[in-house]
Amino acid sequence: MIIGVLGGGQLARMLAMAGYPLGLEFIFFCPERDACAAPLGEHICAGFDDESALARLAERADVVTYEFENVPVQAVQFLSERVSVCPPAAALGVTQDRLREKHMFQALDIAIAPFAAVDSLDDLANAVKHIGLPALLKTRTQGYDGKGQTVLRCTEDLEAAWKQLRGVPSIVEAFIPFERELSVIAVRGSNGETAFYPLAENTHENGILRLSVSHPGDPMQAQAERYAQRLLDELAYVGVLALELFQVGDELLVNEFAPRVHNSGHWTIEGAETSQFQNHLRAIVGWPLGSTAPSGYAAMVNFIGTLPDSAQILTEPYVHLHDYGKVSRPGRKVGHATLHVASEQTLNAGLGKLLALSGVNHKSA
Amino acid sequence: MIIGVLGGGQLARMLAMAGYPLGLEFIFFCPERDACAAPLGEHICAGFDDESALARLAERADVVTYEFENVPVQAVQFLSERVSVCPPAAALGVTQDRLREKHMFQALDIAIAPFAAVDSLDDLANAVKHIGLPALLKTRTQGYDGKGQTVLRCTEDLEAAWKQLRGVPSIVEAFIPFERELSVIAVRGSNGETAFYPLAENTHENGILRLSVSHPGDPMQAQAERYAQRLLDELAYVGVLALELFQVGDELLVNEFAPRVHNSGHWTIEGAETSQFQNHLRAIVGWPLGSTAPSGYAAMVNFIGTLPDSAQILTEPYVHLHDYGKVSRPGRKVGHATLHVASEQTLNAGLGKLLALSGVNHKSA
Repeated sequence: MIIGVLGGGQLARMLAMAGYPLGLEFIFFCPERDACAAPLGEHICAGFDDESALARLAERADVVTYEFENVPVQAVQFLSERVSVCPPAAALGVTQDRLREKHMFQALDIAIAPFAAVDSLDDLANAVKHIGLPALLKTRTQGYDGKGQTVLRCTEDLEAAWKQLRGVPSIVEAFIPFERELSVIAVRGSNGETAFYPLAENTHENGILRLSVSHPGDPMQAQAERYAQRLLDELAYVGVLALELFQVGDELLVNEFAPRVHNSGHWTIEGAETSQFQNHLRAIVGWPLGSTAPSGYAAMVNFIGTLPDSAQILTEPYVHLHDYGKVSRPGRKVGHATLHVASEQTLNAGLGKLLALSGVNHKSA
Repeated sequence: MIIGVLGGGQLARMLAMAGYPLGLEFIFFCPERDACAAPLGEHICAGFDDESALARLAERADVVTYEFENVPVQAVQFLSERVSVCPPAAALGVTQDRLREKHMFQALDIAIAPFAAVDSLDDLANAVKHIGLPALLKTRTQGYDGKGQTVLRCTEDLEAAWKQLRGVPSIVEAFIPFERELSVIAVRGSNGETAFYPLAENTHENGILRLSVSHPGDPMQAQAERYAQRLLDELAYVGVLALELFQVGDELLVNEFAPRVHNSGHWTIEGAETSQFQNHLRAIVGWPLGSTAPSGYAAMVNFIGTLPDSAQILTEPYVHLHDYGKVSRPGRKVGHATLHVASEQTLNAGLGKLLALSGVNHKSA
């Protein structure tokens, strides 16, 4: 069976690695000539507006999936008329517009931070009056890894922030003084069966994920799963979905969801019976899901910009390296490492060295 | 770093899957146009006597390894003069000749079954007088998966057996009424560090491995490791080595070793912290070894000839499928599945279905 993947980055690469053991083959579709997934399959190197190239993909692939949610919706529509696309285009449409996403959360009775739509500087001033400061201004579309958003600390910030985001349709969100930033990776099979991985606690720096620590048995697990389940069912979802959450006291507020495998689920490669990548593939080809049970405790650290020396990363025998085969570039995710051990205590003890190697600010982690 | 692999079968394929996360790239060298490893790297499709193709491999690869021990020794010598080859050619030389292998075991005080060299039908008759019957007649070279060997049950068998093996230089071995057939996967790094996986108990049918069950904490572990350690040190070995053993009472007799990753170590992909494939690569590129600690219990079942329906194999959520992407053919290893669970009891309870799917004779397993 041939899987078409829109995008050729590290998520596509890890999907392929998880799929070869299942006997699946891969065609990556993206305009980047040096896509890091390309060595692991066939590469259709074309723009997402190239309909003849898309038609070729549709003809060859048994099912098409995507590794990023900003894939042009026209491309997905074009493909959907010709080949099965999972997760469904509806999920993509929702995540591509923060306002639609918020409205869906409200409709599903999923708790979120106070927000308001903002189409002008006046809207922004009004919204901030109601929501208060600090707050976050985010473009409705095209945001990822902290891009397309800015913090509003005082009323003097508004005009500059509005200009910075080029006055495009946006939303303002209350800044949540959260205790923990969490995420749950959920998966739904084509027959409607669902499974959930243990929560991960996440640490970001400058909007980029730096550290995810698995939390088997976390007291917030059930609440997170309830929210994810509602989304999966509402969207008749097939595949992996990542739900990002803020914990405030005993309550979870949902931040956003991603209709794809997710950086905060990379620890599942070593730390769970079946990885998020393999379960995504099992779901979209219509096979039974694998167990999401954790095996011990895992913590994943991202390498941003450059990869430390591989031999140095691997000196600790319970550390696993994932080198994405990318050229170094500031701000770029070039790899990650996962520490996987039997107990939470060992995890915390062993994490310091990995964080130091990755250059994560210890205080923030 | 680029790894050259002599051979392009499932072992090469699984080496590549284990190597991509480490940022390694692969060139497979073999004459088969439809090599199942080929989609996972570059494929030099040439004969092992093609020196210009070998020279190209030597120029491109940082280190060359092999997935089968019958690779022509001339090819390895040619390469060794131009690029680092691991495991060392010396190990290959020994395993390519059962008589040299037996002599090495004797020199290292490693217990083996009584045997004798046989170069003529007279030799054979004499040997059988000393060793007794039943016994095994094996060609000194070119044996694998039960090929190049035959059982001698009575003196009337000798002449036919000798003809069947075409009168090539051979050995006769006493038939050992073993209680268990075991193997240990060992690995030695370029700095001399060694590590050992838990023993696997193996079941063969018609000379082909059908089932391997991991045995963490087995009472025979220490004896197996001692033998493997002697071989690793004697050969200044770098990479993974598999040692096959017979248990008779409280004693282990060594059958043979393979200078490569091994079918009886496939369970390590899910059942150990670091797989045999990744540790082989870490060793040959000079990186620290990963932990060989078991995680729970694992049993691997080979699929021979044809692969059962994938969805059916995956109905049990703790089963992991490895489809080698090969065309069906009688006697061909086309895939395997590993059941990976927390306790030995669950393992035994869950194994029946997998064995039935694979067509293994339950009695023999």
